[in-house]
Amino acid sequence: MLQGKTPVVSQAVVRRLPIYLRYLQQLQAREVDTVSSQEMGRDLDINPAQIRKDLAYFGEFGRKGIGYHVPYLIEKIRQILKLDRNLPVALVGAGHLGIALSNYSRLRRSELAIAAIFDKDPRKIGLAVAGLTVQGMDDFETRVREQGIRIGIVAVPAPEAQAVANRMVEAGIVGILNFAPATLRTPPTVHVRYSDVTSELQALAYYVR
Amino acid sequence: MLQGKTPVVSQAVVRRLPIYLRYLQQLQAREVDTVSSQEMGRDLDINPAQIRKDLAYFGEFGRKGIGYHVPYLIEKIRQILKLDRNLPVALVGAGHLGIALSNYSRLRRSELAIAAIFDKDPRKIGLAVAGLTVQGMDDFETRVREQGIRIGIVAVPAPEAQAVANRMVEAGIVGILNFAPATLRTPPTVHVRYSDVTSELQALAYYVR
Repeated sequence: MLQGKTPVVSQAVVRRLPIYLRYLQQLQAREVDTVSSQEMGRDLDINPAQIRKDLAYFGEFGRKGIGYHVPYLIEKIRQILKLDRNLPVALVGAGHLGIALSNYSRLRRSELAIAAIFDKDPRKIGLAVAGLTVQGMDDFETRVREQGIRIGIVAVPAPEAQAVANRMVEAGIVGILNFAPATLRTPPTVHVRYSDVTSELQALAYYVR
Repeated sequence: MLQGKTPVVSQAVVRRLPIYLRYLQQLQAREVDTVSSQEMGRDLDINPAQIRKDLAYFGEFGRKGIGYHVPYLIEKIRQILKLDRNLPVALVGAGHLGIALSNYSRLRRSELAIAAIFDKDPRKIGLAVAGLTVQGMDDFETRVREQGIRIGIVAVPAPEAQAVANRMVEAGIVGILNFAPATLRTPPTVHVRYSDVTSELQALAYYVR
């Protein structure tokens, strides 16, 4: 949906923006003030022309022969990704992975903190996890809407993942991070990202001689 | 290192191969026999020319006007990624995340199963996790070498991640999957992949209006 200054960009571009952001924040921590697309490309193993093209979707952030001003580009990418506001996240699945995610301090300190934890298992409902109480799934949609949550994390076993995703879509969630090794079917307005340990290890296997 | 038929390909290409593989395996489960780079590109949100180029690094797998034969391409990608043999994996960190990874059945059934779990915490050493016993870090390098392990998973807190990575490099590990939100410095011969929940959620934040 084209609206105002926000262009329609591919998911691949959107996926790269957080990688640029993490890198730029590392540069900032080292008090590096400017960076060229060449340097970024070398460090991130991404074609510099791709980086320039990705960023140019959103504005003219760099200057020829100088490069990008690090603090300015950080601010701009944070605005593009809407990280200049708090976006509460709902987690479904209070197993080992869910608890690890809930306790993850970097996430807790961020604008994308887990604000509600759900599990259908009666033995888990009521448990205190990372300052929150695990809730049952009965009023899931109501609770999610009440808290204005638009992003969800699926941390349930694969056979249950689609049912959880359906509930999330029903509750108005538009972004799902799926840790279950299952492909989710969602409406085109809902974006799904997969965190797939197997794929990551397979990529590393390539380098074993 | 250029050796025989194995070309030097960028990390970006290697990263995409498991995504192609997972997709092709889904097609195979649905008994789809051929697929074009156009169809792959549409479903995976990757430029079809990029897909053709990626695969062409390794051979001529497709036919003009027909596309790729799904079972054949699966076999070829598995060979390229060296998934036609078992590659045991060492996990360091027996916290919630480490235990979740160890119990992850898809990984346990795969050629990339976790074969050894380590933790420096005396309270965790000796615990039974997913059929394995958590070992201390004292003999880490010896144990890793004995089991012929070349791939490691870092699931420790960020401040400890670099020290663990150093031990892994010392033990002859050449591929590291890092779950700690810390950039790891390793020799150029050692490949690091980052699993970063924060980056994934940030990409989803873009779609929240």
